[in-house]
Amino acid sequence: MATTFAWGNTEASGPLRRLPIELAPPGPDEVLLEVLYCGLCHSDLLHIDEVRPSDAPPAVAGHEVIGRVVEVGDGVDSALIGSVRGLGFVAGTCRHCRYCLSGRQTLCDNLEMTVVGRPGGFASHVKAHQDWVIPIPKALDPASAGPLFCAGITVFEPLFSAGISPTASVAVIGVGGLGHLAVQLARAWGCEVTGITTNAAKSDEIRGLGAHHVVLLPELAQQAGSYDLILNTSDHALDWDAVVGALAPQGCLHQLGLCPSPIPLKVLPFVKGNLSFRSSLTSTPAATSLFLEFCARHEIEALVEVLPMAEINTAIDRLRHGDVRYRFVLQGPA
Amino acid sequence: MATTFAWGNTEASGPLRRLPIELAPPGPDEVLLEVLYCGLCHSDLLHIDEVRPSDAPPAVAGHEVIGRVVEVGDGVDSALIGSVRGLGFVAGTCRHCRYCLSGRQTLCDNLEMTVVGRPGGFASHVKAHQDWVIPIPKALDPASAGPLFCAGITVFEPLFSAGISPTASVAVIGVGGLGHLAVQLARAWGCEVTGITTNAAKSDEIRGLGAHHVVLLPELAQQAGSYDLILNTSDHALDWDAVVGALAPQGCLHQLGLCPSPIPLKVLPFVKGNLSFRSSLTSTPAATSLFLEFCARHEIEALVEVLPMAEINTAIDRLRHGDVRYRFVLQGPA
Repeated sequence: MATTFAWGNTEASGPLRRLPIELAPPGPDEVLLEVLYCGLCHSDLLHIDEVRPSDAPPAVAGHEVIGRVVEVGDGVDSALIGSVRGLGFVAGTCRHCRYCLSGRQTLCDNLEMTVVGRPGGFASHVKAHQDWVIPIPKALDPASAGPLFCAGITVFEPLFSAGISPTASVAVIGVGGLGHLAVQLARAWGCEVTGITTNAAKSDEIRGLGAHHVVLLPELAQQAGSYDLILNTSDHALDWDAVVGALAPQGCLHQLGLCPSPIPLKVLPFVKGNLSFRSSLTSTPAATSLFLEFCARHEIEALVEVLPMAEINTAIDRLRHGDVRYRFVLQGPA
Repeated sequence: MATTFAWGNTEASGPLRRLPIELAPPGPDEVLLEVLYCGLCHSDLLHIDEVRPSDAPPAVAGHEVIGRVVEVGDGVDSALIGSVRGLGFVAGTCRHCRYCLSGRQTLCDNLEMTVVGRPGGFASHVKAHQDWVIPIPKALDPASAGPLFCAGITVFEPLFSAGISPTASVAVIGVGGLGHLAVQLARAWGCEVTGITTNAAKSDEIRGLGAHHVVLLPELAQQAGSYDLILNTSDHALDWDAVVGALAPQGCLHQLGLCPSPIPLKVLPFVKGNLSFRSSLTSTPAATSLFLEFCARHEIEALVEVLPMAEINTAIDRLRHGDVRYRFVLQGPA
């Protein structure tokens, strides 16, 4: 196997440097992808910023991979070689626990994440289990498809698994990397869609993504009882009473932003309104395939800025300052 | 119509006194019940303790009524007269809003509660809409059936409306007025049942109600990942991290106790576990009928201490001190 390279960091917060890495050949049921593109997700920053032991291998982030299968392990059909596929947050599961066996693989007791304990997609190559490298419909552009495998599937899951009705009123708080896909999806899902933003200057753009309405976050308190589903992609501490108050009876606040402070929920509005609060991470291979077909059918795509992978430190710096509309994609070769 | 009496209070917190009250004859679709029994619920204390304007009519609590229909308004079949029925927290809804028309009457925009703006069941008579006075299966003892109409239906709703599977593991926090019914119900529902209590001396009693396991609340942190559903009947601030941590993947914390302080939920466990938090109040007439049939079939009953209504102040005082196993019922006539 050829020498492989990855953009990794040994000191918390970077900068990332191009390093040679050792990748063992793909094991049973594994494939090796040559990375064509890899999206940059906000959670990559958490990975890059993590303080690790000084003798730990470099952190290599990247979990929105579009790659070409170049090698397969035992038990994988060699016809996969040459195909272009996507890989997200999960690179493998045990396939034997009750969750895997009941089609709820993201709850697997032995979830293997693409970037935890292994080098991720900011690299020349990355390995994953064959079930988690998903074929990409022809109608989707590989250059912008990477973010569908994390940002996209993350916002699809709440609509899909909760069986949200197309008659529902859906609000999306935060129209950024996740939110700009959530607005498009909810619109294609048939729902009445409201984009909720702190940035009035983005209103027309949010309508252009498919929102019927745009509400400024400080004015959310005036929308009491309005939404059957609120997808909150923001990780900031919000006026939670206003957020919960904006739910219609039997409404759900689905929290996707990794807000570091606990969310204080008052009981009485939940009692009276029969409300719920929930969250989720990514979704299963089967749901991801349906999601990609849905995106292809409805011409939903991530709006991306593509940079060569050698400019990854620029992309990281700009993402830290919120200077991206709406997602960076790093293009290989590494 | 004969003079009617009620046990009411004009000063917050009581004591209750026996007062004559004016009840207009039942209007269209209403019935008048002669009160045979009325359960004493913890939320009655909130009603009794409420500070009201000095010129407000006396507060008359009581919303777990078993009564005999003695008079009916226009549009009600006179064959109902003489029948014994139960009345809970809701005395009427508009029947015309989208919630009423879709069988979700407890979300009605114009919910009429049995004790709000009208005298409740600690009285000789009480009025309600005909749809909300539910026939009682013959197998149920009217003397103990009152608490089914608030405590019982409140714990039935989370099992019924969420479609909890009989294969689920269900924990009940707080085995009191609501909890002792929740344990019986979850057992009859086919679930694995754990009673969670602060009182080790109650363990055998809780097992006698049907719990397979009893866990002391301070030891809940040792039950990580155990329960598909936690019904929390306690209104105390708990170690919420331990409570959420005790949920199995895709588990739900269903909060029934009216905890006055907000519940601080950390996002990450909800993300990783695909967890949910929800709440509810009571349930619909249709669900209440199914619930009563279920209780009759499974010999589920409230364990009550029956006192004459003239001893209501004693019952209230003892309830304030937690001195009841498990529910007081006040017996008429008032």
